[in-house]
Amino acid sequence: MSAREVTTTRVGIVGGGPAGLMLSHLLARRGIDSVVVDHRTRDEIERTVRAGILEADSVRLLSETGVSDRVLSDGDRHGGTYLAFGGRLHHIDFQELAGASVWLYPQTEVFVDLADTRAAAGGDVRFGVSDTSVHDITGERPSIRFTGADGNAHEVRCRYLVGADGSHSLCRHAIPPTAIRQYRKEYPFAWFGILCEAPRSAPELIYNHSDRGFALISQRTETTQRMYFQCDPDEDVDAWSDDAIWSELQARVGANGHELPEGPITGKSVLRFRSNVVEPMRYGSMVLAGDAAHTVPPTGAKGLNLALADVRVLTDALGQALAGDDDALDEYSRRALDRVWRSQHFSYWMTSMLHRHDGADAFDLRRQVAELRSVVGSTAGATYLAEAYTGWPSG
Amino acid sequence: MSAREVTTTRVGIVGGGPAGLMLSHLLARRGIDSVVVDHRTRDEIERTVRAGILEADSVRLLSETGVSDRVLSDGDRHGGTYLAFGGRLHHIDFQELAGASVWLYPQTEVFVDLADTRAAAGGDVRFGVSDTSVHDITGERPSIRFTGADGNAHEVRCRYLVGADGSHSLCRHAIPPTAIRQYRKEYPFAWFGILCEAPRSAPELIYNHSDRGFALISQRTETTQRMYFQCDPDEDVDAWSDDAIWSELQARVGANGHELPEGPITGKSVLRFRSNVVEPMRYGSMVLAGDAAHTVPPTGAKGLNLALADVRVLTDALGQALAGDDDALDEYSRRALDRVWRSQHFSYWMTSMLHRHDGADAFDLRRQVAELRSVVGSTAGATYLAEAYTGWPSG
Repeated sequence: MSAREVTTTRVGIVGGGPAGLMLSHLLARRGIDSVVVDHRTRDEIERTVRAGILEADSVRLLSETGVSDRVLSDGDRHGGTYLAFGGRLHHIDFQELAGASVWLYPQTEVFVDLADTRAAAGGDVRFGVSDTSVHDITGERPSIRFTGADGNAHEVRCRYLVGADGSHSLCRHAIPPTAIRQYRKEYPFAWFGILCEAPRSAPELIYNHSDRGFALISQRTETTQRMYFQCDPDEDVDAWSDDAIWSELQARVGANGHELPEGPITGKSVLRFRSNVVEPMRYGSMVLAGDAAHTVPPTGAKGLNLALADVRVLTDALGQALAGDDDALDEYSRRALDRVWRSQHFSYWMTSMLHRHDGADAFDLRRQVAELRSVVGSTAGATYLAEAYTGWPSG
Repeated sequence: MSAREVTTTRVGIVGGGPAGLMLSHLLARRGIDSVVVDHRTRDEIERTVRAGILEADSVRLLSETGVSDRVLSDGDRHGGTYLAFGGRLHHIDFQELAGASVWLYPQTEVFVDLADTRAAAGGDVRFGVSDTSVHDITGERPSIRFTGADGNAHEVRCRYLVGADGSHSLCRHAIPPTAIRQYRKEYPFAWFGILCEAPRSAPELIYNHSDRGFALISQRTETTQRMYFQCDPDEDVDAWSDDAIWSELQARVGANGHELPEGPITGKSVLRFRSNVVEPMRYGSMVLAGDAAHTVPPTGAKGLNLALADVRVLTDALGQALAGDDDALDEYSRRALDRVWRSQHFSYWMTSMLHRHDGADAFDLRRQVAELRSVVGSTAGATYLAEAYTGWPSG
């Protein structure tokens, strides 16, 4: 057996996506060293198309801690959004109602900004590792073992481990099932997502209710758009021609008087819906953050924002824990879960208000429209939605 | 065949519950004569135990049109309500949030006040009739035929007919099914309702969420209380001893730190949940009002309030129609249905937020609590609920 190259650090982070890199960055700003490992190469992560709506607090975190000026210059500030139902578009003015905006800035760009920032600061981030495993997670010297991109065996010894390794988290799987509670919900919905070369069809997102099912019209750039329509979870994307896709999208938005400029479709995929929550988010010397601890349906645009909210709170908690207050990690779990459950509800609410349900009849569709009318017709109702969408105050 | 006694009036009203009597009263105040018929005796209607929450506008209608001072003196003003979940009671302050109160005043008392008011004014109200039928509803001289309490055959000829004859409405059944659209929803919920001799356990209603299911603690008088707990729609009330009922109620409110003073149970019944809407609420020379056109689950306390809101709008519409503007009745339908559908949604929302759903798992229960926390934790969320509960502005 060949010798392991051992690195010692204070925080070992499994997962080099936005949660892991942001945590590493925030810790470094406090003088706390960490090592990040990820089985994916940087290039693989950059090629993953993901959601693009950042809450105001997420944007502040990126811009004020020096990760990204691009989010402000290249991102699009959205001061509101459209709910389309009952034959027309209704605007929800986030600024007026909740005093906040959201920003359209793809997760891939967030990742690039973070990876560049860590690289420029000399952060220890190891992409493309394999055979990762975590050890001694209940003790005071836990470790991560892996084969580096260099082919050598490595070990990162640390005081605390962080599992920021996504929904299939190996860290979460290392926790005895009896030590945590896992909450799950499967939704009978999915989204057929496309990327297309077309001009923007609206300045902000359109959440579109129709008798045929939900559609979401979002943007990426001046010339590239991202759109979704509710589909069966087992939908076969290859069975859909570009014409059929456009026809379905146009029918759904057309029910509310909107029309989409069309263009070549450059990507097609089905997004399944799932909710997961792990409680608590701490086990021994290991904590979970982001998708490793919780996933939400995409309707509320909360996934990435929750991950960033987690590590914002976790940075404080790890600082306190490393200074001797180990209970701070329990408090991290409590605070993070409070936001996670509110987000689960918001995501569920947006999903059930806007999607066509299996077996939905005329009553259900009329009731949904009545709910949407109640929300946009009441300043309180619209504010309740705007507060949730733009993100509740940090805490 | 014996001769019919014919009465001629401008508005013939089938149904002498609160909707029919209030309409007759409001019309009389405008100098518009009407005749009301009901197959029940006055005594039968008075013995029907029904909901007791009146919106501010309903109370105003009763007090300002001279029907009832008792609602203000004998009714209990509730400036808010309690949502009980997650281990404790949370107060929703209607006055502070929506600038309005509701009043606890049983529907039976509303009926008594209305029946007395019509009797004192010499209004033509015929209780205890039988063999009621409506005729020529598409013509300009529709009529109601019935056998009076006197055993004689009667006919009421009028210009407009109003079906205010409850959820089994014979008037609605007289409309060709192809001329209206009926929306229906069955809920897998029911309430086990009790009347009991016990002191008040809280100054306002308690809407209680628990893992065991919903419970509603309401009041009737200082010494008589009305309580409900969610049960199976096919529950057999006789299978429940008083001890078993109290034990179930105490377990549900006890989960949120509350305890009920107990006492002898004097009534037990199962309330099934159902939503119905008929569109439009007008056919030819006939209009529908109240339960004849729509029913809601009891959770939002909207049934009686919707009936009174209907006839408030309908009084204006009939005045205009009798003055030659027949289209006013279409406008009545449109305006009434707007409120009906908002109420359907509100009733559905309160029901689904608070009841234990078939097959609910730990995720669902946690999400419900997260929703309840989101609502009470946000001024906007609590206001949205308070506005709906106290009744939206007239319109």
